[in-house]
Amino acid sequence: MNEAVILLSGGMDSGVLLAWAGRRYERVHALTFDYGSRHGKREQEKARELANHYGAHLTEIGLSFFNGLFSSSLLTGGDEIPEGPYAQDNISSTVVPFRNGIMLSIAVGYAEDRGISTVLIASHGGDHPIYPDCRPGFTEAMSRAAQEGTFSRVNIQAPFASFDKKAIAGLGRELGLDFRMTYSCYKGGEIHCGRCATCLERKTALGYDQGLDPTEYEQ
Amino acid sequence: MNEAVILLSGGMDSGVLLAWAGRRYERVHALTFDYGSRHGKREQEKARELANHYGAHLTEIGLSFFNGLFSSSLLTGGDEIPEGPYAQDNISSTVVPFRNGIMLSIAVGYAEDRGISTVLIASHGGDHPIYPDCRPGFTEAMSRAAQEGTFSRVNIQAPFASFDKKAIAGLGRELGLDFRMTYSCYKGGEIHCGRCATCLERKTALGYDQGLDPTEYEQ
Repeated sequence: MNEAVILLSGGMDSGVLLAWAGRRYERVHALTFDYGSRHGKREQEKARELANHYGAHLTEIGLSFFNGLFSSSLLTGGDEIPEGPYAQDNISSTVVPFRNGIMLSIAVGYAEDRGISTVLIASHGGDHPIYPDCRPGFTEAMSRAAQEGTFSRVNIQAPFASFDKKAIAGLGRELGLDFRMTYSCYKGGEIHCGRCATCLERKTALGYDQGLDPTEYEQ
Repeated sequence: MNEAVILLSGGMDSGVLLAWAGRRYERVHALTFDYGSRHGKREQEKARELANHYGAHLTEIGLSFFNGLFSSSLLTGGDEIPEGPYAQDNISSTVVPFRNGIMLSIAVGYAEDRGISTVLIASHGGDHPIYPDCRPGFTEAMSRAAQEGTFSRVNIQAPFASFDKKAIAGLGRELGLDFRMTYSCYKGGEIHCGRCATCLERKTALGYDQGLDPTEYEQ
C-alpha cells in the first residue's frame, strides 16, 4: 500500500499538506506533537478535525520534556509572545531549538517501525530566513540521515519547499480545504488574535484585505 | 568555555566517552534518556553514578511515548529478549527504530539552546552491521543536518567510530574508568545476566576469559 507519514501541526501549511497527501497516498499517518506550546491545545483540536475530515490515522505524541529543556517564548514557560510582523530581532525568541529535527526523527522512527518509506513536512520558502530547521538544506540533510539510519531507507520530502505561503494558500483553495479547520495564532486563544506575526502572515497569505480569508480574528 | 553535550546511556561505551570527554572539555553536559527500555532503570542509575564521578551536568529526559509508538523487544511492552550472541536474525527485534536519530536531535536542540557547538555519541565499529543508526554514514549525515538546522551550527562527533568494543575497553582502562560504574545487560536485572548478546559482547571486550573483567555476572 502507498503510505506516507506527515507532520500535522494543525496550522494552515500542514493542513494543505494533508489535503495534498490525501490525493496521492492510499493511507496517510498523521503525527501531531504536544510540546507544551501556548497554541498547542488549539492546534491539536484542529489536527484532530483535519485528520478526521481527511481520513488520516492520527497519533498524538506528548513531548513534555520540551518545557524543562528549552527556553522559547513559544513554550508556556517562556517569555511573552512578541507582536508585529516577523523579523529576526523579535521572532527569534519563538524558536524552539531544532524542533523540526526532533519531530522528523520521531516520524522517521514511526515510519521505519511500520515499513513506510516517506515522511512529509510542510516546510516552505517563507519560513527559511528565520528558522534554520525549515530551510531546504536542512530537510535534505535530514532526509539523508533518515535514509542512512533506517533499514527501509526512509526519506523526508518537503513538497512545498519552493512555495511561499500565498502559493500554499492557493493550493489549499484548489484542493477545497476549509481554512477554518486550521489554526495559526501563536497566542493560543479561542480565536486568532490577528496581531502576532503568524496571524499577520496568515492574513496576507489568505488574502484578508481582499476579503478572501474565512478566519475569524479578534482584531 | 569549551563545552560539549554527550549522550550517556550508562553503558560501557558512553561511560568511556564521558571519561574521554572529561579530559577534553571544561564542562560536559550529559543527557540520559528513559525510553521505557527493560534495562533503562539500571542504566540510569549508572548514568547518575558516572556523571557524578566525572563532574558532568546530567539531565534525565523521559521519552514515555516510545512504548506506545514502537514495537521492539528492548521496550518493556515488547517480546522477550533473545539470548546468545548478536546476529541479524535474533537481535534485530531489539532495534528501537531511529533511536539515535531521536536522541541526537534532542541533544542538538539542547546544545543550540545553550550555544554549545558539539554533541558527542559513542557509536563504534562493532555496532554498525546491526543498527543502521549507529553507522558512520548516519552520524555524518545527522551532523550535517544539525549544522544546517541550527543557528550555532551544532556538529555531531563520534570519536569511537573507527574503534571496536575492545579498543573502547582498552581506552577506558587507560583513562582509569571503573567499568563497574557501567551497565550493559539488555535484561535489566540487578546484576548482568551474562548470557544476552550485550553481556557476551561486554565479556569479550573486557577480557572476561582472561580474568580482566570486573563485572559481576549471574552466569
